[in-house]
Amino acid sequence: MPDPIRSLRTGPDAPPFLIAGPCVIENRDICMRIADFLRRLTVKEGVPFIFKASYDKANRTSIDSFRGPGPQEGLRILEEIKREFDIPVISDIHAPAQAAEAAEVLDIIQIPALLCRQTDLIVAAAETGKPVNIKKGQFLAPWDMGNIVDKARSAGNDRIFLTERGTAFGYNNLVVDMRSLGIMKETGCPVIFDATHSVQLPGGQGSKSGGDRRQAPPLAQAAIAAGADGLFMETHFDPDNALCDGPNSVNFEMMETLLPRIVAIKSIINDGGKA
Amino acid sequence: MPDPIRSLRTGPDAPPFLIAGPCVIENRDICMRIADFLRRLTVKEGVPFIFKASYDKANRTSIDSFRGPGPQEGLRILEEIKREFDIPVISDIHAPAQAAEAAEVLDIIQIPALLCRQTDLIVAAAETGKPVNIKKGQFLAPWDMGNIVDKARSAGNDRIFLTERGTAFGYNNLVVDMRSLGIMKETGCPVIFDATHSVQLPGGQGSKSGGDRRQAPPLAQAAIAAGADGLFMETHFDPDNALCDGPNSVNFEMMETLLPRIVAIKSIINDGGKA
Amino acid sequence: MPDPIRSLRTGPDAPPFLIAGPCVIENRDICMRIADFLRRLTVKEGVPFIFKASYDKANRTSIDSFRGPGPQEGLRILEEIKREFDIPVISDIHAPAQAAEAAEVLDIIQIPALLCRQTDLIVAAAETGKPVNIKKGQFLAPWDMGNIVDKARSAGNDRIFLTERGTAFGYNNLVVDMRSLGIMKETGCPVIFDATHSVQLPGGQGSKSGGDRRQAPPLAQAAIAAGADGLFMETHFDPDNALCDGPNSVNFEMMETLLPRIVAIKSIINDGGKA
Amino acid sequence: MPDPIRSLRTGPDAPPFLIAGPCVIENRDICMRIADFLRRLTVKEGVPFIFKASYDKANRTSIDSFRGPGPQEGLRILEEIKREFDIPVISDIHAPAQAAEAAEVLDIIQIPALLCRQTDLIVAAAETGKPVNIKKGQFLAPWDMGNIVDKARSAGNDRIFLTERGTAFGYNNLVVDMRSLGIMKETGCPVIFDATHSVQLPGGQGSKSGGDRRQAPPLAQAAIAAGADGLFMETHFDPDNALCDGPNSVNFEMMETLLPRIVAIKSIINDGGKA
Repeated sequence: MPDPIRSLRTGPDAPPFLIAGPCVIENRDICMRIADFLRRLTVKEGVPFIFKASYDKANRTSIDSFRGPGPQEGLRILEEIKREFDIPVISDIHAPAQAAEAAEVLDIIQIPALLCRQTDLIVAAAETGKPVNIKKGQFLAPWDMGNIVDKARSAGNDRIFLTERGTAFGYNNLVVDMRSLGIMKETGCPVIFDATHSVQLPGGQGSKSGGDRRQAPPLAQAAIAAGADGLFMETHFDPDNALCDGPNSVNFEMMETLLPRIVAIKSIINDGGKA
Repeated sequence: MPDPIRSLRTGPDAPPFLIAGPCVIENRDICMRIADFLRRLTVKEGVPFIFKASYDKANRTSIDSFRGPGPQEGLRILEEIKREFDIPVISDIHAPAQAAEAAEVLDIIQIPALLCRQTDLIVAAAETGKPVNIKKGQFLAPWDMGNIVDKARSAGNDRIFLTERGTAFGYNNLVVDMRSLGIMKETGCPVIFDATHSVQLPGGQGSKSGGDRRQAPPLAQAAIAAGADGLFMETHFDPDNALCDGPNSVNFEMMETLLPRIVAIKSIINDGGKA
Repeated sequence: MPDPIRSLRTGPDAPPFLIAGPCVIENRDICMRIADFLRRLTVKEGVPFIFKASYDKANRTSIDSFRGPGPQEGLRILEEIKREFDIPVISDIHAPAQAAEAAEVLDIIQIPALLCRQTDLIVAAAETGKPVNIKKGQFLAPWDMGNIVDKARSAGNDRIFLTERGTAFGYNNLVVDMRSLGIMKETGCPVIFDATHSVQLPGGQGSKSGGDRRQAPPLAQAAIAAGADGLFMETHFDPDNALCDGPNSVNFEMMETLLPRIVAIKSIINDGGKA
Repeated sequence: MPDPIRSLRTGPDAPPFLIAGPCVIENRDICMRIADFLRRLTVKEGVPFIFKASYDKANRTSIDSFRGPGPQEGLRILEEIKREFDIPVISDIHAPAQAAEAAEVLDIIQIPALLCRQTDLIVAAAETGKPVNIKKGQFLAPWDMGNIVDKARSAGNDRIFLTERGTAFGYNNLVVDMRSLGIMKETGCPVIFDATHSVQLPGGQGSKSGGDRRQAPPLAQAAIAAGADGLFMETHFDPDNALCDGPNSVNFEMMETLLPRIVAIKSIINDGGKA
């Protein structure tokens, strides 16, 4: 299979791209149903699509939370989705030793925000040669990401994506500083806005995180208008019963309403030149 | 003169409106030149325009800063601009005793963000019967504005505007929480985004505030995409030499580039229904 | 009456001083009872004492909140307390026009935190010749207070006190940065820690502010250990039924437990030299 | 060797304890010199002492930063210090696989703040049976630590320590919320204040973190006065030339001045009963 990310166009003359899927792989059928919906919708709207789901949530709030099927079973399901729908897939790793195995299936390897300072993890992901999407830690300034991009590039990898997912703002709350998008673009990396983690209220429900999914669409629109290249949105047909990040995940109807607007806003930004 | 704000349409079927002008009335001719430019540009773009300039900056960082011509001379200049260009004008007051005099000229009375908790000032402004634009304090949550709107409405005034101008974020920095726009709209008031004060770095230059005007256009685009009804932007033909808020004020070229984008983004949001 | 603040010793060889009393003057008898208790306790512990109560709370969260008896009646009550107990009194003003009247009774004039950037108010208070206590705004960095001290000193007044009362930290919460005490002492002004406003949760109860009075004593101990010269603590015999700031005010028992510790900690800091 | 932490008394009737040493193991001789100084000083002041140094700094700001000697050599040096000075030692691990090896030498295993949400790491450390010191993430509220303590206790380990090391406060700055000490003590765990990391300015020098070591002593005094059981302080005889965390590390003279004060303040808090 040729490298599908190689042909992904980003920047001031490209449509927005979308990374979406359930927070965690609950099971094969749920993933297939979500991938099918998103595949159809993004084809209709002309939006490049990358399917995302985690197979091992290693940093849940509580030890009793659902963690997913683990790497072996998880990667098998992602491979099936990739083949069945002819779409690239992305997932996250939590230890350097997981990089090589993940790279056999994933088209982009994602570094969780809380781990974005772990040098060995960044380097191990970058050394696979696969594109790497690094989420900015909730504790970092946007200009701090330059040193992290340098860590990845030092491994000879120049296909690095950066993702904004909100910044710690007091306790149990995040704020999105839209200035960060332009600042991170100065690294030369495409910049993604994670609209659903950004509306999390971390730890806001005691033993799990809360969130307000209604705020995800306006923030997604805002981020594209401020210059983001693509969006990351956890999507589920029944987010109230999702096993992870339900309160902040969007449902299918919200995606159907949002995506045409996103395409139209990106088009205005592109036509107007560099944002 | 009929009430020009009475006919101002806001909300999901209206174009964005613009409040703009120099931070402070430096002198009559500078105001005329800026008003003339903004009047022509907004007519061309179909954007309702309200001219803004302060006549007494009562809360500058340093005691040596320029404060403006004071109420008497300032209101005289604003009246001339109003008549000459047939446009409504807005300015801010700092004490209850200033409300009646200001209401004779101003079409909207503005309450500075740092004074938005001063009950007597809110009530005095509201009792003039003129529309009142209340800026959200940098120390408040968006939902805290409900109590403040109630103070104004208790004076029998139902034409209240609310303005987001950034929230304290660590020291000498502000962050714009775009979620606040939707939250403040739940009061029923039109919501304005102040794109130039939001990019201030308060006290960031020792005896004056710094700022980064390059971030004002992407934030303005973002705010309209997130649901703001109008924009507030300090505008000057030579911001580097402006006597107040130069680092964060935009110049004429920036406004010419920005305004068509703002109109186009608002149109997408309107067509798509309630943001 | 000789100037009681002139003889107030502050700094590295002095005991801590205490500014305390009810948030607002509810009535004469309540003030007398609180002043009597605090006078006895501070004499016993060897702590210089200044009675504090506001007579006009001009910036309550809700328009329906109790505001106090107003300047005329309020100053009369403060004068009686001053005479009856032979103690200095402090209260706050909200407009330049209130300064002269206040200076006839008050031994220290206080500037509320939200108004600390209002140049005219600072200058009017300073021009009375009375000592002025300026609270640091919740939206300011400690080093920003230098410009504000300069405003007061420009009026020829060199008896300026600065008070830390918490900094905006996300929404509806404050945090005390204990580094600010040392930074503000670099101005040469005595530095006070306001332990009860610092544990407010502003707007945290919808139409009023919440707070956690149990945190006031440990924060007061911490501030003295970090170098504060004095404390400011709203004190009431029945804070749960106080008409203002009840949730964060301390009761008599808490003061009796706290004060000996404060004296002992200050003594350690003094003996150890410059904190 | 009997378990030295088993006999460590903490809480309202114990002296403060001290975890201190260089940020990273630069070499054997530097560690020996620092351990020797701290051992003598703490014996003199009656303060239980635990030597701390990292052997692998896996999350430095820049890829070019010094990381330390690695686990094998690092643990060998720590073992020598432990034997030579008859003191317990603590260091940090970054992956579950490192726990067992570390537990053979370390008396307490430390979890870095950025990794405090990594369930597998917490569980692996706790399963060794050794005491575990978990640093609170800069992105967490103090009450969020309850879930993390539960993760550790689920592995059958009830000797968990919690450490406050500052909270994200805007960009490139941390603030210490002294309320967190009392809140974390509600878990039943001893609470440590990390006075030197708390005065870091993360990323504040571009490719490395800045800091202000002069603020470490007042913050340490404040934390003990607010109820902390022990202190954590990176200490070096020449911090300006230390290979890691120099700007925020304290020198020997600062420790000699600070420690007697800390002992005296803790004694006041203990005598006064529960803080």
